[in-house]
Amino acid sequence: MKAEIIAVGTEILLGDIINSNAQYLAQELAALGIDMYYQQVVGDNEKRIIHAFDEAYTRSDIIITTGGLGPTNDDITKEVASKYFNKKLLSDEKSIEKIKGYFKFREKKMTQNNLKQGVIPEGAIIINNNNGTAPGVIIEENNKIMILLPGPPKEMKPMFEATVKPYLKNRTSSILISKMIKILGIGESAIADEFNELMDAQTNPTIAPYAKEVGVILRVTAKANNEEDALKLIEPIEQQIKDRLGDNVYATEDIDVEDVVAKLLIEKKLTISTAESCTGGMIASTLINYPGISEVLLEGAVTYSNEAKHNRLGVKNETLEKYGAVSEETAREMAIGIAKTAKTDTSIVTTGIAGPGGGTREKPVGLVYIGVYVKGEVTIKRCIFNGNRSRIRLQATITALDMMRRILIKK
Amino acid sequence: MKAEIIAVGTEILLGDIINSNAQYLAQELAALGIDMYYQQVVGDNEKRIIHAFDEAYTRSDIIITTGGLGPTNDDITKEVASKYFNKKLLSDEKSIEKIKGYFKFREKKMTQNNLKQGVIPEGAIIINNNNGTAPGVIIEENNKIMILLPGPPKEMKPMFEATVKPYLKNRTSSILISKMIKILGIGESAIADEFNELMDAQTNPTIAPYAKEVGVILRVTAKANNEEDALKLIEPIEQQIKDRLGDNVYATEDIDVEDVVAKLLIEKKLTISTAESCTGGMIASTLINYPGISEVLLEGAVTYSNEAKHNRLGVKNETLEKYGAVSEETAREMAIGIAKTAKTDTSIVTTGIAGPGGGTREKPVGLVYIGVYVKGEVTIKRCIFNGNRSRIRLQATITALDMMRRILIKK
Repeated sequence: MKAEIIAVGTEILLGDIINSNAQYLAQELAALGIDMYYQQVVGDNEKRIIHAFDEAYTRSDIIITTGGLGPTNDDITKEVASKYFNKKLLSDEKSIEKIKGYFKFREKKMTQNNLKQGVIPEGAIIINNNNGTAPGVIIEENNKIMILLPGPPKEMKPMFEATVKPYLKNRTSSILISKMIKILGIGESAIADEFNELMDAQTNPTIAPYAKEVGVILRVTAKANNEEDALKLIEPIEQQIKDRLGDNVYATEDIDVEDVVAKLLIEKKLTISTAESCTGGMIASTLINYPGISEVLLEGAVTYSNEAKHNRLGVKNETLEKYGAVSEETAREMAIGIAKTAKTDTSIVTTGIAGPGGGTREKPVGLVYIGVYVKGEVTIKRCIFNGNRSRIRLQATITALDMMRRILIKK
Repeated sequence: MKAEIIAVGTEILLGDIINSNAQYLAQELAALGIDMYYQQVVGDNEKRIIHAFDEAYTRSDIIITTGGLGPTNDDITKEVASKYFNKKLLSDEKSIEKIKGYFKFREKKMTQNNLKQGVIPEGAIIINNNNGTAPGVIIEENNKIMILLPGPPKEMKPMFEATVKPYLKNRTSSILISKMIKILGIGESAIADEFNELMDAQTNPTIAPYAKEVGVILRVTAKANNEEDALKLIEPIEQQIKDRLGDNVYATEDIDVEDVVAKLLIEKKLTISTAESCTGGMIASTLINYPGISEVLLEGAVTYSNEAKHNRLGVKNETLEKYGAVSEETAREMAIGIAKTAKTDTSIVTTGIAGPGGGTREKPVGLVYIGVYVKGEVTIKRCIFNGNRSRIRLQATITALDMMRRILIKK
């Protein structure tokens, strides 16, 4: 079975937005074992959309479109698809009620053009949209399938997951299963060096490294007739990689380092607080991605100024004067101070220079001291990160969480 | 002049990497006033690449490819292009010397397959690559232009900037200039309603709405012979939009709402603190995106637990008991409390239910109270946001910053 993705939207042709939907769908289709040889992007223009459909069906069985289902006059994908398959567009009562309810619940005024979204090609399967007002549509006709999805990723992805994926799964025989081995603390080229031989030798499963913004993922992918067989192929390779990388592997499922830290804290019944200078709330905010975190995260402090470090965390004025706010000593007192005032078992703190200004020869932009406190013990790490302000803050955040993880797994 | 981008690479079709090159090139081509009606992605496969070329030249004068110029056997774009135009591939001494030098300089061993990158289609223009070993190529033939660029963005972008952009500029007369009008507090469909007539009536400049994760952008784009003329076309339309939308317009340049708030605070010499429950540090962390914020942001608190709200911010226990942590009353006491203890002129606070658990009929997931304190005055807003945990937190963060903005511009 072959599929083709057609992104519809002049905003992509103008470069206003990146076509992240195509990447997401490509990954999902690959995982389903569905081949894709082409992708297209086309503007909000009837003639060109039809041309793209024609072209795609000469070589694929399934077209998945994203975009052009919204309320404005520019949004024409559904209208063009209906015309293409010679289907009437009919008002769907349920969809219209949902759209009205959406606006009612949010106490927003609904405008007339929103109702255009409740019109469905005759005989099509409706894909529910729980995060917006435009439902998706599956049209089946003469062994051709067309799946129309909305453009906003926050609407499109849940719809694919809930409806399109099971729909496609029913139509494929072999499957691809991937396992992510998520790594921090060792770079992509070091990993490539370590595993090049293994990667070249493997055909099923395959092994591929991907550099993330911070950290690396090794993806092990097996093709088999069912999930169980695929997992059997993956297992020995996964074990080999884990053995070689040790604690650098923080997860073998699609979770982030904050999830690992949150789970460890909850499991070990350890409370946590944070005190952040250069990361400015990013560590607390990242930890809070984990829904159950409220059990253990008691308090966070963003202590940007020296005054706040002193008043709020009890960092001594003489420490700030003698060693400076960005120093091992300040980090240590911050870690102890926040744990004490917030009455927590553990704490994570940062103090550093995120730039662009403020760097000196001794203390360059990118210098960050990270402090981790666990039950009376303080560990300080001096890091120099590169990149711009937001890159430095992100790296400091992830590195700090990873430090806590490495300490907790040994407790 | 019409152009088409063809990304060559199986890794894009598998979703392993995002096609960020297409976005970059699309923006650059739009700025040059070159039209683009289609983009394609195709795998590393001769037959399919040729098909993509054929298809593109039925509708465009220029093809720009990215990817497939590297040293491995998978990299075939240049070979296929040469065949397509019936050109011999010739060794280019200068390119080969450069490749050898590249490896020498980096003290890396050069393998034989790297020399494949020094082979150039007969008569082609060579695009120097100062960040890698694969030069780019421009082939001109029968009024058709094909520009081959490497896949890695850090090589491709400087090559486009240094060589391809001036090359294309010489071939175009008009330019496109866009102005972003950034809007919060009014939805995409309401904006469409308001401006549909104006949008339909306009051809130069054009007006197009884009929904961002939170908020909407209206982009006004003018085509003219030079920047000055383009701006003259944009100005009256921009004014008209601003007049109609009033305070809902927060920027007419590419800055975010936190930048606007930070600038207002610094300009008015007002210090700020934050106390966050459901947003968990995201407001502080967002404000800190603005490099000069340390002048005015004195302190942030993440007060997730009732204890922290009481101990840290002085929210009365009876308030928490009587009205609950997620209430107007608690938000009010938080806003006053953090401003008082951090000794700031202003504060922003949030308390809400980000989910997925914790919702009730009276207080559903998505309910967030935002409090803004400015010099003794507290404003509270009750919001119901939709989407998942991270969407709710993001909307609360942006809405809170926007509340502060609206209050500050009136001060």
